[in-house]
Amino acid sequence: MTSPVNINRRSIGVNFTETGEAEVLLWAPLCNKACIRLLDSNRMHALQKQEYGYWHLRTDQLRPGDVYSFVLDEKEELPDPASLSQPEGVHGPSRAIALHDFQWTDQEWKNPLLEDYIFYEVHVGTFSDRGTFRALEKKLPYLKSLGINAIEIMPVAQFPGERNWGYDGVFPFAVQQSYGGAKDLQHLVNACHNHDIAVVLDVVYNHFGPEGNYMSKFAPYFTDKYKTPWGDAVNFDDAWCDGVRQYFIENVLMWFRDFHIDALRLDAVHAIKDFSPMHILREIREHVNQLIHERWKMHYLIVELDLNDTRYIDHPERGGYGMDAQWIDEFHHALRVTSGEGQNGYYSDFDGIRHLAKSYRDAYVYDGIYSPHRQKKFGVKADEHPGFQFIVFSQNHDQVGNRMSGERTSQLASFEMQKMLAGAMLVSPYLPLLFMGEEYGETNPFLYFVSHSDPELVENVRKGRKAEFAAFHLQGEAPDPQAEETFRQSKLQWELLEQDQNKILFSFYQSLIALRKELPALRHLNRKQLDVSWNEDTNTLQLH
Amino acid sequence: MTSPVNINRRSIGVNFTETGEAEVLLWAPLCNKACIRLLDSNRMHALQKQEYGYWHLRTDQLRPGDVYSFVLDEKEELPDPASLSQPEGVHGPSRAIALHDFQWTDQEWKNPLLEDYIFYEVHVGTFSDRGTFRALEKKLPYLKSLGINAIEIMPVAQFPGERNWGYDGVFPFAVQQSYGGAKDLQHLVNACHNHDIAVVLDVVYNHFGPEGNYMSKFAPYFTDKYKTPWGDAVNFDDAWCDGVRQYFIENVLMWFRDFHIDALRLDAVHAIKDFSPMHILREIREHVNQLIHERWKMHYLIVELDLNDTRYIDHPERGGYGMDAQWIDEFHHALRVTSGEGQNGYYSDFDGIRHLAKSYRDAYVYDGIYSPHRQKKFGVKADEHPGFQFIVFSQNHDQVGNRMSGERTSQLASFEMQKMLAGAMLVSPYLPLLFMGEEYGETNPFLYFVSHSDPELVENVRKGRKAEFAAFHLQGEAPDPQAEETFRQSKLQWELLEQDQNKILFSFYQSLIALRKELPALRHLNRKQLDVSWNEDTNTLQLH
Repeated sequence: MTSPVNINRRSIGVNFTETGEAEVLLWAPLCNKACIRLLDSNRMHALQKQEYGYWHLRTDQLRPGDVYSFVLDEKEELPDPASLSQPEGVHGPSRAIALHDFQWTDQEWKNPLLEDYIFYEVHVGTFSDRGTFRALEKKLPYLKSLGINAIEIMPVAQFPGERNWGYDGVFPFAVQQSYGGAKDLQHLVNACHNHDIAVVLDVVYNHFGPEGNYMSKFAPYFTDKYKTPWGDAVNFDDAWCDGVRQYFIENVLMWFRDFHIDALRLDAVHAIKDFSPMHILREIREHVNQLIHERWKMHYLIVELDLNDTRYIDHPERGGYGMDAQWIDEFHHALRVTSGEGQNGYYSDFDGIRHLAKSYRDAYVYDGIYSPHRQKKFGVKADEHPGFQFIVFSQNHDQVGNRMSGERTSQLASFEMQKMLAGAMLVSPYLPLLFMGEEYGETNPFLYFVSHSDPELVENVRKGRKAEFAAFHLQGEAPDPQAEETFRQSKLQWELLEQDQNKILFSFYQSLIALRKELPALRHLNRKQLDVSWNEDTNTLQLH
Repeated sequence: MTSPVNINRRSIGVNFTETGEAEVLLWAPLCNKACIRLLDSNRMHALQKQEYGYWHLRTDQLRPGDVYSFVLDEKEELPDPASLSQPEGVHGPSRAIALHDFQWTDQEWKNPLLEDYIFYEVHVGTFSDRGTFRALEKKLPYLKSLGINAIEIMPVAQFPGERNWGYDGVFPFAVQQSYGGAKDLQHLVNACHNHDIAVVLDVVYNHFGPEGNYMSKFAPYFTDKYKTPWGDAVNFDDAWCDGVRQYFIENVLMWFRDFHIDALRLDAVHAIKDFSPMHILREIREHVNQLIHERWKMHYLIVELDLNDTRYIDHPERGGYGMDAQWIDEFHHALRVTSGEGQNGYYSDFDGIRHLAKSYRDAYVYDGIYSPHRQKKFGVKADEHPGFQFIVFSQNHDQVGNRMSGERTSQLASFEMQKMLAGAMLVSPYLPLLFMGEEYGETNPFLYFVSHSDPELVENVRKGRKAEFAAFHLQGEAPDPQAEETFRQSKLQWELLEQDQNKILFSFYQSLIALRKELPALRHLNRKQLDVSWNEDTNTLQLH
């Protein structure tokens, strides 16, 4: 290793020793001078160059809560790429935090077996009126009563402005200020554990957001070897990749070790381009295994994957990357077409009940057969993989929010069909994931929203959004992503739970979840004992 | 499979049935009409559209030897992408050939075990005055007397003009006209086998040459997902990749089945970008295994690889691509620095005797350690891989020809050092490869030469060549790649063999090769029984 990762403590950014001194470590291999500016005292301290482009300082002049920035080559003053806090947003200075000060009371907590997980996906900003971790915490008794045992939090890495799905984050180590920051996230995780609820965090390692991304000023974090939907790829295998790899490995370890996160959901790992002999996901796996071994706390690695490629979830001995589980969108697509939705865009590859049956049986619908939408053969067979390696849903933030008008299922399907969809997911031999509000039939949309400050970028986002819907041949206009109203419209309306039909749906979900936990046939995700038969004329399907 | 590859016969291009009819199959998925024009009769025949973008015709109007072209959408008239012959060069029409007409007399031939291979790399154009397969054939008794048992022929796919290393080929199925074409290659292979010499063919699947590349007119053979030194990458995993994959699989099978080639050397496979669940190399492996199984003839797949990544040579059960062996340039680099060459360019990563010792022991010098030249950790350990999975050399076409003045070792090292280098290679626990002429100390250079017809391209090649040498900080001017003189200067001077010192060197190689074949310690490539010690002060190294 060029700069060995210490499993037990974060080494990059600003961290505090047991005696209260600050350890500063910055990776900036191509600059000739690096300083830290302490904004309170307006003092500059030079960092000492180390091997492999790292710069170091140990000082007692920097205390938790202090605000600082880095100055490169006496020119550019920038926030810390490994900042834990951005009190003034993505363009402002960073603030030092002593992550270890938090008083945890979750010593008794034990992460459930992955096969027992029932996920509930949450967007912090729209889950409550206030849109904070603290407000979310208040709903834990409710979530507990629903029966789910894991909340999956959409990305919380600091993003530009106060409204964002989270995938525009530019400080992977800093917890979004408007959600309450690092301490409030620790507080939330602690509270979840005390409610017997696990916490899954969605993290984005395949790109950085378009605003406030200063990474390239520090080091070659990107490479033009590969093209991604977001431009140049994150540099996982080109010259200087070691520092980039360490950066993300440290990020994974921080969430598990310092925030007690139980599982990570790694966003769109198919967009992580890495031809190294050891794929970054496998290197992450090895480090997480070390952490598990040292701390005796279980942690899971779950990936969003659009590849139907078992190498991601295969054991490293078989050449796999060793991820614990992956999302399967194909179950969703087959299910939605079965429920009557039009075969537009990527739905065009799915014919309904026959493909749904295939997904129940084989997980992947496209397992080596030709995909007309992708215009190539797609996928491999996943026969030997247990059901708990696959996560299914009848809706999620993407499937709802990527519709032009962000309609949830409640706006697209009859009440009976909503129940049907819930049942289809909860009796599957895979891990179910609910999207916040679906359990009571939330009627508000979940729209795409941002709060960038760069007008040109705002315009581009608006345009891009329109272009996206061209594929679906939709009429009408997409709501303005930048408008605060678009964000506000997307909030859950908890008062709906006072209405009869919403109550009924909630009880239905409650009962199904309870059944899944109790009935051995539903609880044990044994795909080999599952028989699937279907009838295309009656559009029915039997599992036994 | 979208269009299943038939192991027993070529399906794309023009092929002849047993009854003499022509089967025409063209892949052109995005066009609306495809015709074949027979130039002798000036007749057009429409092809019938099939599934997955293939166009088909069966006709008795087209005979072996006939010249034809394809006409797409009644506009573009183009040569066949799977052409077997380009009598008028890369821009002209194609000629049909009945590959099965050749009368083979090599029924007794048995491909040696890979571990017994001693390679001799040949560039057809400069090996002899005439620069043809027939002229090469005349030298087989000489090569036999040297003791090598495999010639490795630099690429013969039709390239622009008459002078080229072969890496600018644009018709992977057509044998270079100026070398003698398909029939003469078959004749050569037959003669080699009758001299107990195996034939390895260098094939290029990572790019097409810059002139005469009409592939994109037919189908999406390229993708901008990846950047390569040659621009857009060959499309192995993007939309429409199936037809591209089939194209190259068919190419592999043709050489083995229809030309009796014993092994392929796949050029620079690190530049083949493929994130599919099944890497194209592994898919090639599976098809070749089928062919071996059906025909009971052994064939090897050898790769040039600049990655130090065992996944290429690992067994598919371990997640590998199943290639039989790979080149290791690092042995060469360490050896040349040990011999006193300057540590410029990529030599800068090699410190001489210590790295040479490491390569003798571990094959890869960079096996996970930090490479200053690449600015990242590089490689993995290859402890469990037998010696015959690695091919070493003290010079080769690239290492000679990529020098600005193309000096062979004879011009760079003393006579004693030339013998030392030969010995270093031939006592290694890896498979040795000689570059034509090194066995008698050829003094002519092996320069970089082309014979493009596009003046702009010629100018760009000249410029590119100059830029390349900037890295080596060389003085002087590179010879003009386009000049015929540059090509002629690179030819072997067989008359040198009449001179005493050249004769001595030849005898030395002869004896060393004989020793390698006879001495069990040299013959059995057991790396585990090899001990390496070295002394940096005396620059000596002991193998025992």
